[in-house]
Amino acid sequence: MWSAPRLREPVRVPALVDGAVLLRFRFVVCAAIRETVAMDDGVVRIGILGCGNVGGALVRLIDDNADLISRRSGLRLVVTKVAVRDLSRDRNLTFAPGVLTNDVASVVQSDEVDLVVELIGGIEPARSLILDALKLAKPVVTGNKELLANGGAEIYEAAAIAGVDVLFEASVAGGIPLMRPLRESLAGERILRVMGIVNGTTNFILTQMTEHGSSFADALAEAQNLGFAERDPTADVEGYDAAAKAAIIASVAFGARVVAGDVYREGISGVSASDIAAARELGYVIKLLAVAEERDGAVTVRVHPTMVPNAHPLAAVRGSFNAVFIEGESVGDLMLYGRGAGGDPTAIAVLGDVIDAATNLHRGSRGATLGTLVHKPIRPIDEVQSQFYLTVDVEDRPGVLAAIASAFGTHGVSIQSMHQQGEGDEAHLIFVTHLAPEAALAATIHEVRELDTVKRIGSVLRVIGSGT
Amino acid sequence: MWSAPRLREPVRVPALVDGAVLLRFRFVVCAAIRETVAMDDGVVRIGILGCGNVGGALVRLIDDNADLISRRSGLRLVVTKVAVRDLSRDRNLTFAPGVLTNDVASVVQSDEVDLVVELIGGIEPARSLILDALKLAKPVVTGNKELLANGGAEIYEAAAIAGVDVLFEASVAGGIPLMRPLRESLAGERILRVMGIVNGTTNFILTQMTEHGSSFADALAEAQNLGFAERDPTADVEGYDAAAKAAIIASVAFGARVVAGDVYREGISGVSASDIAAARELGYVIKLLAVAEERDGAVTVRVHPTMVPNAHPLAAVRGSFNAVFIEGESVGDLMLYGRGAGGDPTAIAVLGDVIDAATNLHRGSRGATLGTLVHKPIRPIDEVQSQFYLTVDVEDRPGVLAAIASAFGTHGVSIQSMHQQGEGDEAHLIFVTHLAPEAALAATIHEVRELDTVKRIGSVLRVIGSGT
Repeated sequence: MWSAPRLREPVRVPALVDGAVLLRFRFVVCAAIRETVAMDDGVVRIGILGCGNVGGALVRLIDDNADLISRRSGLRLVVTKVAVRDLSRDRNLTFAPGVLTNDVASVVQSDEVDLVVELIGGIEPARSLILDALKLAKPVVTGNKELLANGGAEIYEAAAIAGVDVLFEASVAGGIPLMRPLRESLAGERILRVMGIVNGTTNFILTQMTEHGSSFADALAEAQNLGFAERDPTADVEGYDAAAKAAIIASVAFGARVVAGDVYREGISGVSASDIAAARELGYVIKLLAVAEERDGAVTVRVHPTMVPNAHPLAAVRGSFNAVFIEGESVGDLMLYGRGAGGDPTAIAVLGDVIDAATNLHRGSRGATLGTLVHKPIRPIDEVQSQFYLTVDVEDRPGVLAAIASAFGTHGVSIQSMHQQGEGDEAHLIFVTHLAPEAALAATIHEVRELDTVKRIGSVLRVIGSGT
Repeated sequence: MWSAPRLREPVRVPALVDGAVLLRFRFVVCAAIRETVAMDDGVVRIGILGCGNVGGALVRLIDDNADLISRRSGLRLVVTKVAVRDLSRDRNLTFAPGVLTNDVASVVQSDEVDLVVELIGGIEPARSLILDALKLAKPVVTGNKELLANGGAEIYEAAAIAGVDVLFEASVAGGIPLMRPLRESLAGERILRVMGIVNGTTNFILTQMTEHGSSFADALAEAQNLGFAERDPTADVEGYDAAAKAAIIASVAFGARVVAGDVYREGISGVSASDIAAARELGYVIKLLAVAEERDGAVTVRVHPTMVPNAHPLAAVRGSFNAVFIEGESVGDLMLYGRGAGGDPTAIAVLGDVIDAATNLHRGSRGATLGTLVHKPIRPIDEVQSQFYLTVDVEDRPGVLAAIASAFGTHGVSIQSMHQQGEGDEAHLIFVTHLAPEAALAATIHEVRELDTVKRIGSVLRVIGSGT
């Protein structure tokens, strides 16, 4: 009997030849009644676009866990086509003849593929391939955050029109179940805010800085040595990766058209060892958070380094782990924690989606759809309210604090706490404000900077806790 | 137009009368073509058994969030029947005439009910009512942990035979998405172990003891004052509630027939303030954990107080919050955190299931089933391996440690660390062992207790960390 490609056991290649013969036989016999056969015997045939880290792990898991999958779902998943760029590359996988191809479009079109898994990433040709698959009424599973963060609405609508599933759990926070809880478990909930540590590289760097007092540069170098960071780390450390994920989270949580370009974004390259030390003294840790919230009908989406109180569950998320904290009107606080990247964890997320979509396909149904995302106003960052932490270096002269406090007062920014460090001529002032609009803080900073006694404004960080 | 029962606005009762007229009219017209009408206009009619804390919150949410639910699912949920024990009780809810009844069986049988929500709890009549609903091909949503922990297999099989959904997210860990991630997101994953803080009362008590140095009795009294603990707290503090949830978790995670009686169980009433203090000194916190694991084809399920290392994510779960930590072969570590109880959070879990089952019903399909749970051997607690913490009070004489160490050695229990406290004639020894079977530790304790120099064996607690 034909089964999924055999792996790790090259000695079984002869059996594969038999398998391939059986496979070919079945296709000849069943060419005209493909769907019925594929469905009636519980076989769902998978075409995979891209076989890198995640794709390779997926192929292995489908094979290794075939019994488990069959027992749980009643289905047998068979990988019939895998499109790769380079046919000669060694993937440590053994495929039956005819499975591997470098013609990506042929996989989508193939009569031997019931369900398409897109793992090539980027916008094109992924977008066209997915739309083509949906037009053929083939469900799609994708982990493509770049595409969904820029053109998700088009994909979700095409799936709704075609009446098939498009599932994308792996696009945000790797192995953590997030999209399914948001879309299904919380289908009846009004979600107020989602705050996520969704980039493992930056969380690793910030953890190193916090726990070992490293500088940003040293922590980044260590992350690069360990393979947690790319040689060009811009996408991670400047928050672009997190911003794409924030856009997807906001789309799903609020049913709104939010694209990566709508996300206010600041990275962590400006976070200093002294910021981290000052945060610790005040009872905070610094995390790069992706924050999506809906208030009064408008959506705010932003990514920036944030001071998180030690007692908040997100503060305990260390190293390269990810976590997403959800605040719902009725459910209260939820947090989902786990591995946000890596071939195996991400492949588990893809596989969960594949089994879900395959089950629906087999039953002639589909799961929940996102349908049409509506246009909701995106609140400009200037109008977003935050608490702020900021440091000001001043000459230690009488009246300096009064002058600064007056500048805060002029712009309606209320001070929650002030700490003074340093001795002699120079003092280092640390302020934490109450909630204030970004524009008011910017105006305050502008005015404070003009004061004679002020030498420099140091870091400005937002402070987030429960309900603020 | 008829809509769900209006709440919080008793002045709108006149409108309800109109609604009821319309409702009756529709039922007359459509009596013979009930299903078509109910489905084609996207209306799914809900019958609720039990209208206490969770049921009341559910009725409110279906009304308050009707627009949201309709936008996300395309469905309109209408509560057509609600069975209560006492019709005269004031629930701060207004129902249309004919909705409220004290005939619970009539709700299941009613032609005006497409989907049944069971919230009466306990084994009978809940079991018979659920089986009757499934026989009528009506999907069932339940939060009944007692029933599922004792007779879940029968319910899951009946649902599989009837081809309809039975969903039970609310039965474990209230508002935390757990069953759906286990059943769907991790459908392709080999789950190795699940460890949960699944009882908010005991976690509140242990948190009070840890953070304020309270005794067990004082912390329990405070929990009772705050309404976190029942007047008879046995089910919570002796671990019966957690054991029922552990059985459900094990059934779902391993597809195995596990009932509450299979669960080894110890409560927290024996945990002392000095245990908590000693744990802190060693870098641990004490938590009541429900642990389900599968090794070498056998399943272990147990509930007991456990020393959890401070750096473990479960250690940071404070107060009445719940969290479930999942260890998967490929996905690594996951944790799901949130409110484990309370009307609103639990009702959100029920509502997510209702929307899921209603969507499937509307499409003439159903979701993933548990199908037939298989019999897997349950490993007796004696054979389960743990690390142990134990305290021994001894006379401080030469040779005492050698005698104790020899007893450990005789039974193959290896000591990881030993700390000595106290001065003068008496010493207090604290041991942490390496992994050892429970039976070996019991034999060791028996032998140590017989030693002349040993005054008493104090606490014995299991120690759990990642991978141990």
